[in-house]
Amino acid sequence: MIYIINESKQLIILEFMEFTLSQVASLLNGELVGEGHIKVSKLSKIEEAEPGSISFLSNKKYENFVYDTEASAIIVNKDFQFAKPVTVNLIKVKDSYTAFTLLLEEYQKKLQVPKTGIEQPSYIDDTAAIGEELYLGAFAYIGNGAKIGNHVQIHAQVYIGANVSIGDHTVIYPGVKIYDNSTIGAHCVVHSGVVLGSDGFGFAPQKDGTYKTIPQLGNVVIEDHVDIGANTVVDRATLGSTILRQGVKLDNLVQIGHNCVIGENTVIAGQSGLAGSSKLGKNCVLAGQVGLAGHLEVADRVTLAAKTGLSKSVRQPDSYKFGYVAMDHKAYLRSHAVFKNLPELSKRVQELEKKC
Amino acid sequence: MIYIINESKQLIILEFMEFTLSQVASLLNGELVGEGHIKVSKLSKIEEAEPGSISFLSNKKYENFVYDTEASAIIVNKDFQFAKPVTVNLIKVKDSYTAFTLLLEEYQKKLQVPKTGIEQPSYIDDTAAIGEELYLGAFAYIGNGAKIGNHVQIHAQVYIGANVSIGDHTVIYPGVKIYDNSTIGAHCVVHSGVVLGSDGFGFAPQKDGTYKTIPQLGNVVIEDHVDIGANTVVDRATLGSTILRQGVKLDNLVQIGHNCVIGENTVIAGQSGLAGSSKLGKNCVLAGQVGLAGHLEVADRVTLAAKTGLSKSVRQPDSYKFGYVAMDHKAYLRSHAVFKNLPELSKRVQELEKKC
Amino acid sequence: MIYIINESKQLIILEFMEFTLSQVASLLNGELVGEGHIKVSKLSKIEEAEPGSISFLSNKKYENFVYDTEASAIIVNKDFQFAKPVTVNLIKVKDSYTAFTLLLEEYQKKLQVPKTGIEQPSYIDDTAAIGEELYLGAFAYIGNGAKIGNHVQIHAQVYIGANVSIGDHTVIYPGVKIYDNSTIGAHCVVHSGVVLGSDGFGFAPQKDGTYKTIPQLGNVVIEDHVDIGANTVVDRATLGSTILRQGVKLDNLVQIGHNCVIGENTVIAGQSGLAGSSKLGKNCVLAGQVGLAGHLEVADRVTLAAKTGLSKSVRQPDSYKFGYVAMDHKAYLRSHAVFKNLPELSKRVQELEKKC
Repeated sequence: MIYIINESKQLIILEFMEFTLSQVASLLNGELVGEGHIKVSKLSKIEEAEPGSISFLSNKKYENFVYDTEASAIIVNKDFQFAKPVTVNLIKVKDSYTAFTLLLEEYQKKLQVPKTGIEQPSYIDDTAAIGEELYLGAFAYIGNGAKIGNHVQIHAQVYIGANVSIGDHTVIYPGVKIYDNSTIGAHCVVHSGVVLGSDGFGFAPQKDGTYKTIPQLGNVVIEDHVDIGANTVVDRATLGSTILRQGVKLDNLVQIGHNCVIGENTVIAGQSGLAGSSKLGKNCVLAGQVGLAGHLEVADRVTLAAKTGLSKSVRQPDSYKFGYVAMDHKAYLRSHAVFKNLPELSKRVQELEKKC
Repeated sequence: MIYIINESKQLIILEFMEFTLSQVASLLNGELVGEGHIKVSKLSKIEEAEPGSISFLSNKKYENFVYDTEASAIIVNKDFQFAKPVTVNLIKVKDSYTAFTLLLEEYQKKLQVPKTGIEQPSYIDDTAAIGEELYLGAFAYIGNGAKIGNHVQIHAQVYIGANVSIGDHTVIYPGVKIYDNSTIGAHCVVHSGVVLGSDGFGFAPQKDGTYKTIPQLGNVVIEDHVDIGANTVVDRATLGSTILRQGVKLDNLVQIGHNCVIGENTVIAGQSGLAGSSKLGKNCVLAGQVGLAGHLEVADRVTLAAKTGLSKSVRQPDSYKFGYVAMDHKAYLRSHAVFKNLPELSKRVQELEKKC
Repeated sequence: MIYIINESKQLIILEFMEFTLSQVASLLNGELVGEGHIKVSKLSKIEEAEPGSISFLSNKKYENFVYDTEASAIIVNKDFQFAKPVTVNLIKVKDSYTAFTLLLEEYQKKLQVPKTGIEQPSYIDDTAAIGEELYLGAFAYIGNGAKIGNHVQIHAQVYIGANVSIGDHTVIYPGVKIYDNSTIGAHCVVHSGVVLGSDGFGFAPQKDGTYKTIPQLGNVVIEDHVDIGANTVVDRATLGSTILRQGVKLDNLVQIGHNCVIGENTVIAGQSGLAGSSKLGKNCVLAGQVGLAGHLEVADRVTLAAKTGLSKSVRQPDSYKFGYVAMDHKAYLRSHAVFKNLPELSKRVQELEKKC
């Protein structure tokens, strides 16, 4: 067991291989202030650290924990100004958060050894082409004509439809469903419960009040280095493709409608949704529970605050929108400040009416 | 390969069997203006069309593409007034969009040959009754007493609980989970990740602050011609049934609480949710991310704009509501117009107070 | 068949074993006003009851149904004041709703006999430890080092990752996915489509505009008596644990971000979402489609009304918040009342400006 669970059942300590502080300092390209021979084998949060563990300080808010932490060493920014004298060993680096992330990665490599081999029973159509070093979990399904790259991990109970292609080093977690003709790039991560390529929501109203289904014949295209959170849905296009460009990050329970295009490195937080045919620029940030109407265009580096409802295109790059219906972020806050005191404003108008 | 992926990885061309323009005009009951012997084999979007493909023009906004399209023919409305002379072959029909949809359907029939047969391993309880021409994907599960109609497609990894009945020609996509005693009609389409019949959210508060689970003993009833989008959830009733009437269309990630009744041909867009026991009329339209409180009644043909929060019943048919808390749609827009300028209004009141 | 479907396909009648009204009155510790020898075998809603069925009256709104119900008996509160004379048999109890719930539970025990045994094919890693009386559905997967308690039900197509532990009497419905190292308590219920332990949404922005994934090395800890609704997602912690304390109830399609802690007996309704690292107190109630920003603290017994967007901590216990951005509940309603008449208020200010 690498993980240790404490009495309150919280997992707080992560053991990794033993390193001396000199070795860690060297790995992080940092300056050691303290005893280089001391050994550490765990990563911890600063407020929960035990002897033998190493932690980091990045946010000034947590400074107080430094003065009585039991950690064997703390990674800090070179230019951090301590208010009081510090006794704990320090490793000073340019950016403590990034340095700690590096340690997390080193640790993850040791912890999460990628699975290999093909578990049984699983289903691979005779016409599917499989790359090297595939991991295929039990009860997974690979349909006809599918093309799977090298070093791909397809976990248990995943469904890969006909003619789907998946790039090298991509990880598909248990239970993901990928419809026919979808294309997934390399180095992508797709979490459990995700559905890629389901029909776009298109129905033509008929004279008798019923709806006729519009066939959805396009597909989903996902470029490289895209991460998709659990239970998120990306619909196929009616014609053409719904596209997630390189580096896109989607959180959980997000909805991407048919024919949408999400620009490079755009990040969309949980439970946000796009109706059909909207196009987002590069490096946009959508916070949680944001909604976009259909057929909108959003420029590069636009931010939409949480719960914003966008009904019009945003053509100005670097815009920051908020509210429902969406407004300029600061304007919304100013209006909302008055909204909070509307009853009082209303009374003041009444008073004026009496006077005048 | 029927699908062709272009350099930017977008799927833009769909090949189908070759037809002459005369044949297409005849199929669509349209008038051909151009050369009848020319052959087409692809459906394309007008802005991306290549020689040998056929497209359509319905929205005036796209008219400009007609003048230099490379498509071999364009389907247009009979009464469409072109601003400039047109050189491309035209097929004139009453309604170009519907005509194109017809071609999409013809194409879909050729493209998506329904799967048949029972893949192994799959699980069918001995007491289940199976109709003719069933497709059952690998790792699918059919529980005891289930009744499956004719020409039904149950894809891989689907779960059909005990005593579930499924009508003729219904398609259940990979990974759908249907709890015991649910009833699904004929000609329905249920997308991946959908859960039907999970427990309603009912807990009785106890004196010690804990909650006691209220048993949920009802079921889910889905009538004919209902479409359900990916990862949508419909809870079973406490007693009685949660019902989706004929022709209902649900988008992705929708939540239908226990004991709700959704009227015929009502359409609900993505991420909208209904708490328990609400009843929607016929032909209502709920846009995305709408929320309804419990125990509401909504009349026929009511529209709720995106993100509307409805806390009271809407008894007037054909109402159009918007906002949070919901108001009449136009009234909301008028109030919101003032909201945008509240800081200025507040200043004007201050000015008046100084003067008076 | 125990369930009966009427012509409109609604399941309205639930047969159970026959009891006399005297027996029911005795079971419920109630007083019978009527004929004790009459037999009942069904539970029904009061408005749909048939002879031979028993129903209950708790809400004054439904009183009128009592006067012409066909039910053989109605359970009512001792102190219920009828407006007119009643002819139906009554069973008077302290709390009619709780008494009826008791009957539902008795009925449920008869109806839903727990499944037992291990269906094939299923996958159990050699190193997993399995308790007594396990039900394991077909196509379910139990990873290495997993520890499953006694009387656990793991339905078809469930995925249990490495080193997951599951407490006694817990029920995991079809298709749930539980990532490595998660801990689930005893007497929990997890509905279909739930994902536990997916990666938290953490990406560090790089200078070139791309994002680097921050390894998510923590886990998910779920204590006893927790219910989780269909397609809900709980992310693992970056370090440490995302925790659902004892008695927490989550509805469908809820999102719980990494490192959140949900206090005892807190209830969260459908489609609500918490960004990372927020901590909710005990016995809070979040209505539907509520959203919380990250790193917030919410005190005990706080209520957040539907669609509330919370961006700041709520340190006052028993607070009741509403709106977007969240305000005190009553204050929001007062401000919204003025909002509805903003165009008129604006005109009044204009009038005043003309006058002064």
